[in-house]
Amino acid sequence: MAQIGVGMLGYAFMGKAHSNAFRKIPYITWPPPLEPLLVGIAGRNEEAVAEAARRYGWDYATTDWRDLVADERIGLFDNGGPNSLHAEPTIAAAQAGKHVVCEKPLGRSADESYEIWKAVDATGVKHLCAFNYRFVPAVRLARELIEAAELGEIRHFRGRYLQDWGDDPSLDTWRFDPAAAGSGALGDLMAHVVDLARFLNGEPTAVHGFTHTFLEGRQVDDAVEAAVQFENGSVGTLEATRFAHGRRNAFQWEINGTRGSLAFDMERLNELQVFRADGDRARGFKTVLVSEADHPFWEFWWPPGHIVGWGDTFVHELHHFLAAIADDGPVAPYGATFEDGYRAAEICDAIVRSGRSGGREEIRYRS
Amino acid sequence: MAQIGVGMLGYAFMGKAHSNAFRKIPYITWPPPLEPLLVGIAGRNEEAVAEAARRYGWDYATTDWRDLVADERIGLFDNGGPNSLHAEPTIAAAQAGKHVVCEKPLGRSADESYEIWKAVDATGVKHLCAFNYRFVPAVRLARELIEAAELGEIRHFRGRYLQDWGDDPSLDTWRFDPAAAGSGALGDLMAHVVDLARFLNGEPTAVHGFTHTFLEGRQVDDAVEAAVQFENGSVGTLEATRFAHGRRNAFQWEINGTRGSLAFDMERLNELQVFRADGDRARGFKTVLVSEADHPFWEFWWPPGHIVGWGDTFVHELHHFLAAIADDGPVAPYGATFEDGYRAAEICDAIVRSGRSGGREEIRYRS
Amino acid sequence: MAQIGVGMLGYAFMGKAHSNAFRKIPYITWPPPLEPLLVGIAGRNEEAVAEAARRYGWDYATTDWRDLVADERIGLFDNGGPNSLHAEPTIAAAQAGKHVVCEKPLGRSADESYEIWKAVDATGVKHLCAFNYRFVPAVRLARELIEAAELGEIRHFRGRYLQDWGDDPSLDTWRFDPAAAGSGALGDLMAHVVDLARFLNGEPTAVHGFTHTFLEGRQVDDAVEAAVQFENGSVGTLEATRFAHGRRNAFQWEINGTRGSLAFDMERLNELQVFRADGDRARGFKTVLVSEADHPFWEFWWPPGHIVGWGDTFVHELHHFLAAIADDGPVAPYGATFEDGYRAAEICDAIVRSGRSGGREEIRYRS
Amino acid sequence: MAQIGVGMLGYAFMGKAHSNAFRKIPYITWPPPLEPLLVGIAGRNEEAVAEAARRYGWDYATTDWRDLVADERIGLFDNGGPNSLHAEPTIAAAQAGKHVVCEKPLGRSADESYEIWKAVDATGVKHLCAFNYRFVPAVRLARELIEAAELGEIRHFRGRYLQDWGDDPSLDTWRFDPAAAGSGALGDLMAHVVDLARFLNGEPTAVHGFTHTFLEGRQVDDAVEAAVQFENGSVGTLEATRFAHGRRNAFQWEINGTRGSLAFDMERLNELQVFRADGDRARGFKTVLVSEADHPFWEFWWPPGHIVGWGDTFVHELHHFLAAIADDGPVAPYGATFEDGYRAAEICDAIVRSGRSGGREEIRYRS
Repeated sequence: MAQIGVGMLGYAFMGKAHSNAFRKIPYITWPPPLEPLLVGIAGRNEEAVAEAARRYGWDYATTDWRDLVADERIGLFDNGGPNSLHAEPTIAAAQAGKHVVCEKPLGRSADESYEIWKAVDATGVKHLCAFNYRFVPAVRLARELIEAAELGEIRHFRGRYLQDWGDDPSLDTWRFDPAAAGSGALGDLMAHVVDLARFLNGEPTAVHGFTHTFLEGRQVDDAVEAAVQFENGSVGTLEATRFAHGRRNAFQWEINGTRGSLAFDMERLNELQVFRADGDRARGFKTVLVSEADHPFWEFWWPPGHIVGWGDTFVHELHHFLAAIADDGPVAPYGATFEDGYRAAEICDAIVRSGRSGGREEIRYRS
Repeated sequence: MAQIGVGMLGYAFMGKAHSNAFRKIPYITWPPPLEPLLVGIAGRNEEAVAEAARRYGWDYATTDWRDLVADERIGLFDNGGPNSLHAEPTIAAAQAGKHVVCEKPLGRSADESYEIWKAVDATGVKHLCAFNYRFVPAVRLARELIEAAELGEIRHFRGRYLQDWGDDPSLDTWRFDPAAAGSGALGDLMAHVVDLARFLNGEPTAVHGFTHTFLEGRQVDDAVEAAVQFENGSVGTLEATRFAHGRRNAFQWEINGTRGSLAFDMERLNELQVFRADGDRARGFKTVLVSEADHPFWEFWWPPGHIVGWGDTFVHELHHFLAAIADDGPVAPYGATFEDGYRAAEICDAIVRSGRSGGREEIRYRS
Repeated sequence: MAQIGVGMLGYAFMGKAHSNAFRKIPYITWPPPLEPLLVGIAGRNEEAVAEAARRYGWDYATTDWRDLVADERIGLFDNGGPNSLHAEPTIAAAQAGKHVVCEKPLGRSADESYEIWKAVDATGVKHLCAFNYRFVPAVRLARELIEAAELGEIRHFRGRYLQDWGDDPSLDTWRFDPAAAGSGALGDLMAHVVDLARFLNGEPTAVHGFTHTFLEGRQVDDAVEAAVQFENGSVGTLEATRFAHGRRNAFQWEINGTRGSLAFDMERLNELQVFRADGDRARGFKTVLVSEADHPFWEFWWPPGHIVGWGDTFVHELHHFLAAIADDGPVAPYGATFEDGYRAAEICDAIVRSGRSGGREEIRYRS
Repeated sequence: MAQIGVGMLGYAFMGKAHSNAFRKIPYITWPPPLEPLLVGIAGRNEEAVAEAARRYGWDYATTDWRDLVADERIGLFDNGGPNSLHAEPTIAAAQAGKHVVCEKPLGRSADESYEIWKAVDATGVKHLCAFNYRFVPAVRLARELIEAAELGEIRHFRGRYLQDWGDDPSLDTWRFDPAAAGSGALGDLMAHVVDLARFLNGEPTAVHGFTHTFLEGRQVDDAVEAAVQFENGSVGTLEATRFAHGRRNAFQWEINGTRGSLAFDMERLNELQVFRADGDRARGFKTVLVSEADHPFWEFWWPPGHIVGWGDTFVHELHHFLAAIADDGPVAPYGATFEDGYRAAEICDAIVRSGRSGGREEIRYRS
């Protein structure tokens, strides 16, 4: 079986999630498109990265990501480090000829994201911005239903990503450090919302809204609120917050069309709510447990009704990327490329500008 | 038992809802604060209004609302007519010394609403703008929990009123006639959203958003989208639409505070979702079936778990107004006065202006 | 409009529910089949029954139900008294030529129920055993879907009626007095379960189970548990309890067939869960908000999504009975006759016998 | 790190589930109690078992399970084969000194289960009957809440395991072959119900019920229905079926106590419904997303709200068994031993006997 050496930057939350995916792919997605070899893992804390290497089975640990870039055995560089470490290592890896995965947000701003995209794209390697929620089976099923025109013309998209861990002044993490993170709920959560908005509903054309910080002394935004218009004529709202008590990982969206509607909540990620305007006297939303043999990604898993977990979305995502490498196929449209990462950043930046100017901001992408 | 003669303008949807309430109040809210006598009902269609009088037990029917204003037996004038018929008859009735109820939206614009409020208020009669959703037991319970500071400091309010009957170009109703209705989803649905936003969360200070019309040739807005800021420092989104397939009467709102959260959906109007940040290891939203002996309005009804219907919200609302008349007590804060009706219109108008200007609009009330 | 004089025995819970229905029917079900006149109400507590007469608008109150039987203005006798007062007054009223409604359970045993049925039926009057849950719109819709063979051949019926008010030794009500009530959860709750089992799924042929009393000193059963077989080949479970903490009025049932399934919970009485085995890739239960123009009883009510309450089931039920009287039409199969009341009692008695003997008990009806 | 060689019988559904668990344990449960080495896998189909070995990373494949028993590198024998292959290989492996895991049902009858238990227990090895649903985080949390007396005295346990794949006469699998499977829904599904009934509520004392076969020619039961009594004074119902259309893996249970209630559905396995009778005015069931830092098994996983999948229950289960081996600790009470496997079979057999005799069957365990 063909293999590919993987180097990873970051060993914490995303390091665990991606390591798990690389270890499951060889047997869950059988036969895998490429067998990932866990070559090297990099991180700043020497002890912690060494333990991560032992734990997840990486051949070696290093505190210098340049070691990974220089390692010829590595054909895929996976960047799960803090946002401030996205640009340089990712570009360097691509320029060294390695295919690259980068966690979202791609950069800390549209400018930085654009720079990463263009620099990496110029090298000709494959690139994936790790918007893993495209790889939730229910989200992919939604996309397929929409592509098949089962919703008709789209009228509304409303998306909100609600978490509740931020309302604590004593918290100290790189996620509150503007230099490391670039932004708060905006890049962390709203980036996901706008990516799925684009994935399911196409390009937004304008946003009206703002970011907001609740806590004195906090350096990044705690919440984002916006009204939005889309190219396809639909309209809606976008929201992201770390201050919604009781909502742990509630990435909720709903899309309404002339022939039907879909609704979703990441806290029940195995379910899709489906409404069809089909004239059935029994009229209502179906709770679809997305786990049938003909549902997305389900050829990998269990009998119907035996649900998958959040961690498994990375299995689907990295499998997709490995397949694109193996087949020299496209990452888009089901996977997010760095261009998608850049576009999400443009929309996020537009909300920031809207909040500052008090005015509607049109979305314009650089090419 | 003390009595009050009632005259009603309008015999259709709201005419039925209010007639039902007046007929139920005498025995459901026992003893009633005042016994309403159904004296006269007015409407433009002679045959229809005559049948409504027979059906609901009004002493007489008339095609001229001035007959009601002139009728000395009538002490309470209830206006459930089209929006264009709110101002003149309501003001005339008040000036004739009758207490007045007017359906929402109070006027077709902030200006017209202001005019109604000021003219009526000057007469000294009691006035109620019929935002009946304040009288849903779960909504009142929410208000009581918030008043008791059980949510702590508020961080977010998000409200959306989703219906799905509007996406049909062949529909013909006064609700699509700008002269009769003033607006579309804005006055019909968003007015409810902003009233409950104010009822539960206090005054908004600014909105960023727009109204939108999907169908060519439609003269009123089909949907409204906005981001919003409140005086108490909280932020959120507001939405109203008649184009959300599968949502029949989904007036949904959620409020997040530092100590807890509440969520609600009018399609399950007997339920309130309650989250308390109380450190309980079993952490989550409670589905509270609002039907306990100590729950709002429940002294009128059944044993716990035996739910009420949408129509019963009017029983609570008009009971409240009759009690205010009987006791010469205030309509506010639990009932909406015409000032509340005016304020809702100011916010709605601000969203329209925001959409036109593309800019944030601050909310300023006239006094 | 044709009228019928009504006399009612009982002024408490059921007295209120039935009085409310008689007062709403004339205008909600327009035009009503017959206009009910509230003539006389009887009860043991002189003061309380007098107040009930004033509250609900009965012409007179009496402490002797024989006054109602003797009153020639009364054409319909409605018995909402304690179970021990079902037989004699109901039979006497029927023998006086009055149509009769009797609350469930019809009698305190199959024998007593049989006696009531046969005595009343012999008089030729119309009789209705007030199993009001047949008149929940979602339950009637279920019946219509089943009649239309939309579920195919039935495999399972499982029903349980869960309440939680019984687990308190200090409670004192006629419902715990075997002489007044006959039984506990059995006649109060299980009777409803078996009536809907019969209404939706046809006749059971055998039960295996038992009644159970948790509290020392309690004279009636607190819970009932049984496995069941039906004539149509389906099997399932039946349960009733007053000891299920957190369940206020959770009458839940589910029915599975070869082509689909339905599920219901009385705490969300406006909703029916509908599954169709139709090969749709989006496979799951629909949450149907039973409130469409073409849904049962909805010609009486509001636009879609504006739900009804528990009390409104009595409006539907008594409207049905008035229509049967007016048209000289049948009460069955949509309304429960006294024969249905008797049959429910036979099944309840069979569970008691099963518990005593430890053996399966076959259901045999007397004719 | 200490290691243990594993041999596995069976490569299909359970083979995949257990292989996945053994591969995830070393890094998800860090540090693992023992590192499992995937030594050998056995199965009847030579080609299929060879592919399974390649897929899941077993050192070798064999068509003769005796090879595994004879292999000295193997210290843990995991039997995921058809029920007819549980007894002989499991006993042989234990007699060869290997710790043993056996899928449920332990044997095809109480007699066979008893034989396996006693033979294996006599060898002194550790044994686990793979009732993996004990290792769902929500189920373990339920157990902990009950152990902490948070429900008070238990009144009811009702459990049902509903699936819908069986209603197809053309299906052909060993699960319909009485020689291979021993029974149908009884051993496959009801065994899980009675195991969790015992795990959460203690020993049942009597059952009243029956098994049922819907399809002509089918050799095993399709459904099981029973009423049940428990040693602790609680009562309830038990059900299992493969004929509940729309229910894919709906293992639902509810337990009611004097101080609270819990409810669960395997289709939402990350959620526990928790009711506390604590006098809170906001009274209702909480939807607890079992994913907090202090929730069972959650030290292995992700931040709150990032849910696990069905497959992960095996990670928890086999981790527990490896820890018991490593520490020479007990498998019970959190894991199911072969005695638990035997006891589940006794209860299942009692339901069969009850159906045949038509009488209540008391549960008596052999020691």
